[in-house]
Amino acid sequence: MRPPTIRDVAERAGVSKSLVSLVLRGSEQVRPEKRDAVLRAARELGYRPNAAARSLSEQRTRTVGVLLNDLRNPWFVDLLDGLNSLLHAHGLQMLLADARLNRRTGQDPADPLLDLRVDGLVVVGTLPDPAALGGVAERIPVVLAGSREPAPPGVDVVAGDDERGARLVAEHLIGLGHRRIAHIAGYGTVGELRRRSFEAAMRRHGLAEQAVVEPSDMTEEGGYRTTVRLLSRPERPTAVFAVNDIAAIGVLSAAEELGLRVPRDLSVVGYDNTSIARLRHVWLTTADNSSHEVGRRAARCLLERFEGAGGAGRVQLATPTLEIRGSTAPAP
Amino acid sequence: MRPPTIRDVAERAGVSKSLVSLVLRGSEQVRPEKRDAVLRAARELGYRPNAAARSLSEQRTRTVGVLLNDLRNPWFVDLLDGLNSLLHAHGLQMLLADARLNRRTGQDPADPLLDLRVDGLVVVGTLPDPAALGGVAERIPVVLAGSREPAPPGVDVVAGDDERGARLVAEHLIGLGHRRIAHIAGYGTVGELRRRSFEAAMRRHGLAEQAVVEPSDMTEEGGYRTTVRLLSRPERPTAVFAVNDIAAIGVLSAAEELGLRVPRDLSVVGYDNTSIARLRHVWLTTADNSSHEVGRRAARCLLERFEGAGGAGRVQLATPTLEIRGSTAPAP
Repeated sequence: MRPPTIRDVAERAGVSKSLVSLVLRGSEQVRPEKRDAVLRAARELGYRPNAAARSLSEQRTRTVGVLLNDLRNPWFVDLLDGLNSLLHAHGLQMLLADARLNRRTGQDPADPLLDLRVDGLVVVGTLPDPAALGGVAERIPVVLAGSREPAPPGVDVVAGDDERGARLVAEHLIGLGHRRIAHIAGYGTVGELRRRSFEAAMRRHGLAEQAVVEPSDMTEEGGYRTTVRLLSRPERPTAVFAVNDIAAIGVLSAAEELGLRVPRDLSVVGYDNTSIARLRHVWLTTADNSSHEVGRRAARCLLERFEGAGGAGRVQLATPTLEIRGSTAPAP
Repeated sequence: MRPPTIRDVAERAGVSKSLVSLVLRGSEQVRPEKRDAVLRAARELGYRPNAAARSLSEQRTRTVGVLLNDLRNPWFVDLLDGLNSLLHAHGLQMLLADARLNRRTGQDPADPLLDLRVDGLVVVGTLPDPAALGGVAERIPVVLAGSREPAPPGVDVVAGDDERGARLVAEHLIGLGHRRIAHIAGYGTVGELRRRSFEAAMRRHGLAEQAVVEPSDMTEEGGYRTTVRLLSRPERPTAVFAVNDIAAIGVLSAAEELGLRVPRDLSVVGYDNTSIARLRHVWLTTADNSSHEVGRRAARCLLERFEGAGGAGRVQLATPTLEIRGSTAPAP
């Protein structure tokens, strides 16, 4: 049995071959009923466009590569949902690669995606060396999503507004009457923006002297160790704002171990609104990055570049919100 | 500037073009020093084999597609590590797709991978309709990893030994003096194997009457709701074995809400040894699936099929172990 061809699809859908081809290339110039009829016929026949051959002739695979910085921290799930919803609506599919795994094997992290000739690349989260993307960006559109590192020329950046998010957190804690507030800081641009915004909010409320900032590596273990140090001081803070949810989980463990009840004795806030923060057993107050929106906007940038938009890279920020849960309470 | 060719790589490495080609095809017949020299030269020159063109000529992309059942539950991370380590050692790269996202958009979940002509497919976790893989398995090697569903002909299955894992859990709890033990069960083959093995262990210890089994949907919310019901009974269990870690987190929340201390008043065990179970704040006793080993063995199956091994699909089981942490203690 020979595999179905584009001609078979056209016959079954009762349209011309060139219309099938338009639909499969994701053209916007096809009426929705026709588009649905073609896609249904293709599905029913099991028609599979030969992406490799098409890649050579049209230079398109209609596939977007998504490079994740580390699969172990599930903060990116909503972002992928948002990204996928818009790409799919435009007939594009998504493939993922894990930068951490590729790095460990000495590959350039985007290589497996580039080898298969993806049409565009979305980098999710902070890579150790974002400048290395410059070479890729000369060939295909690249968007950084959920990270704020300086991007190579022509690369768009979509991220949450970290300054605003950190301010929301600081003001929530100050509003609850906390004065001695510690921030467990992170690294990179994201870490710096959150820290500076926290410090600025404390200053605005005349609390500069009571702000304590401790660096961390943004891991659970780092959050734990830093908090044990913080809470063993004579003048211990009554609230801790951790740079991300994973570090905040470390704060919760340290508090528990030192016999402090959260939130009665210590308020704790994270950042990212990960699935872990939403676990009932954790129920962490946290800043929500609007990751779904970040994903949708990243898809939008890519689509515009596909349609030929040139020019310098732009930076777009989505507005974060505060998710108030069970880990914050009025100061003791 | 023209892109580097295979000839440039050969010159720089001081070897013949055909040797470069052998190395890039992952041949085992090349001395390690030569292989390293070629790979170094290719890296230094930024040589990128044209995977699409190669796919047409050689019918190989040297890429393995990995279909994950749901990115939100991070149980698969160690499995991917194991898979990647062996594939990479054989010059193969890995691309991922999320079956949940593709399903939501009405695609066949493996489509984006098949469109780009991956050489083989590893399905990680239970798909809603594993029989649909039959069509794929007729064209490329397919392995199911970490799932026990009946596989289509010619598909290998590598998974943890669920019966053994559940027995380890039951015997741990019985050994701690627990008698009234509840199991929050799951669905699919994995759910059934764990439940039956739990019941068998209880029978062997003369505790059949004291075993309580409640079905669940394997989510945190499901674990929570089931436990609230279980613990509100007059004869409440002193230990709960949940079908997976996520459901066990729901058990912890329910216990907390009902004023029971874990492990003093209630012992709780999960399954999978996910990163969530390892969080200090959770510190859950759980069965470890040997996922890294499952991943390595799945890679091995695929490599053997690439080398031409035919025949019916085999089932291989990795031996689980018990991770005893802070959520289990002697019966009150």
